[in-house]
Amino acid sequence: MAKAKEPKMLDDLFHDTLKDIYYAEKKILSTLPKMAKAAQDKQLRAAFEKHHRETEGQIERLEQVFEDIGKKPQGKTCAAIVGITEEGAEIMSEYKGSPALDAGLLAAAQAVEHYEIARYGTLIAWAEELGHSGAVRLLKQTLAEEEKTDEALTQLAKTAVNQEAQAA
Amino acid sequence: MAKAKEPKMLDDLFHDTLKDIYYAEKKILSTLPKMAKAAQDKQLRAAFEKHHRETEGQIERLEQVFEDIGKKPQGKTCAAIVGITEEGAEIMSEYKGSPALDAGLLAAAQAVEHYEIARYGTLIAWAEELGHSGAVRLLKQTLAEEEKTDEALTQLAKTAVNQEAQAA
Repeated sequence: MAKAKEPKMLDDLFHDTLKDIYYAEKKILSTLPKMAKAAQDKQLRAAFEKHHRETEGQIERLEQVFEDIGKKPQGKTCAAIVGITEEGAEIMSEYKGSPALDAGLLAAAQAVEHYEIARYGTLIAWAEELGHSGAVRLLKQTLAEEEKTDEALTQLAKTAVNQEAQAA
Repeated sequence: MAKAKEPKMLDDLFHDTLKDIYYAEKKILSTLPKMAKAAQDKQLRAAFEKHHRETEGQIERLEQVFEDIGKKPQGKTCAAIVGITEEGAEIMSEYKGSPALDAGLLAAAQAVEHYEIARYGTLIAWAEELGHSGAVRLLKQTLAEEEKTDEALTQLAKTAVNQEAQAA
């Protein structure tokens, strides 16, 4: 027999979305080394490696947020990040050995960053509404890192990677 | 026998990514009416309806970009948008009838916007590199609309939807 559903409030949504981004960060952590290995440009490889280290810290922050709201850190399959990273894998396979590979990898990484920027922006707004000030502080640190990573990738695209993609 | 692969350049990547976002925009066009129907807040419903009309214009612009580069408008399954919209569908089902439904729908829409913002930003940089000035102009118009939609959703979350999600 189906259990009668409790009405879901903002704190349920906050918790569910925390699980979603926790899963996503772990997926990103396992994907970045593959992207670093595939990258042809040294600066792009270094950018992926740097973000891999940052992601480890972001996962720890999420675990602290779970603790702050009295919950156990737990992931929930995030269909969005599965799809976004699948596109990155397609690029690695379809553009392998091609001049445009790095431009495609970089763009795939920016799609990942933008998903995270959307999610952390949302989580911060909800944490503020719910009065979880510790969570707000932690999530804002991560959001700032994601925005910085996105900006660094944009610069790298403009100064190197996009030109290389068009050079014979 | 497998055909020897041609090395892929930035113009191939631009064309492939154009197909990806063309598929994504059509998927978004079919998803927005469902989100508008599900929304409980009138302003949120109106925002989804407005963006539905904008999306029609964005699809037409993409068709013009295809034409500008001498290609037929054609979509290619975009795993990212499939995953992102799947998360929106989960919210509609899991939060149906709950106070937090609208906050979840709004967040799902912002995840969609951020995917588009990432993709259009990338396409503009590539179009600039490739010297497709007509495409740059068209894509920038759409990017500005996406950014405005995202900002309007942020305001709506802060001024109404997030509070409603916590009200009994």
